[in-house]
Amino acid sequence: MKLVKWRDLEPQEVTQEGAVNTTIRVLLGPDDGVPNFIMRLFEIGPGGQTPFHIHDWEHEMFVLAGRGVCVLEGREVPLAPDDAVFMPGGEKHCFRNTGDETLRVICLIPKHE
Amino acid sequence: MKLVKWRDLEPQEVTQEGAVNTTIRVLLGPDDGVPNFIMRLFEIGPGGQTPFHIHDWEHEMFVLAGRGVCVLEGREVPLAPDDAVFMPGGEKHCFRNTGDETLRVICLIPKHE
Repeated sequence: MKLVKWRDLEPQEVTQEGAVNTTIRVLLGPDDGVPNFIMRLFEIGPGGQTPFHIHDWEHEMFVLAGRGVCVLEGREVPLAPDDAVFMPGGEKHCFRNTGDETLRVICLIPKHE
Repeated sequence: MKLVKWRDLEPQEVTQEGAVNTTIRVLLGPDDGVPNFIMRLFEIGPGGQTPFHIHDWEHEMFVLAGRGVCVLEGREVPLAPDDAVFMPGGEKHCFRNTGDETLRVICLIPKHE
């Protein structure tokens, strides 16, 4: 059993093209011996967003704090704390902070990607 | 993309032997088309706990609210909000509420189990 406190981890700036004011921490990943899926924590600052992108693998997310939207092709879905989100592979998406506070989300992906 | 608000889901009592005052909601599961891993939300009431058990698959957890301990063979690890936990397969464990409020955790498992 391994316990991780995310505030003990150094945030890494997301430098992928299209990312704005966004950091990532890997809470549970390959270094911890996870066999199947990886837990990351993203913080998207006010005015920030993740890249509008598409990939084959899914996200499973849980919103911890803040306000934002999930941007899809042709629509936006509001996000609030306690929302769980399934983003299937093959659907173009990004997450944008629309509030004044940090949008904080847990985001899991399969390990093989 | 699918968004789920956990409070909209009916909690199911965990009836497995050894479970006390514990409910489960499947936030993202097979019915939602998830390909690889399943997101559940557990609420363990004051005085409650999950069964002390062992299985081959892992948990990846995130504590949302409450106070408790992760009980292992020979030791207990305190749990507080914002803690992430990797519980590998093959390690006997349970989660026990040690506080006065509901212990609420997200717990993910691989889909094939």
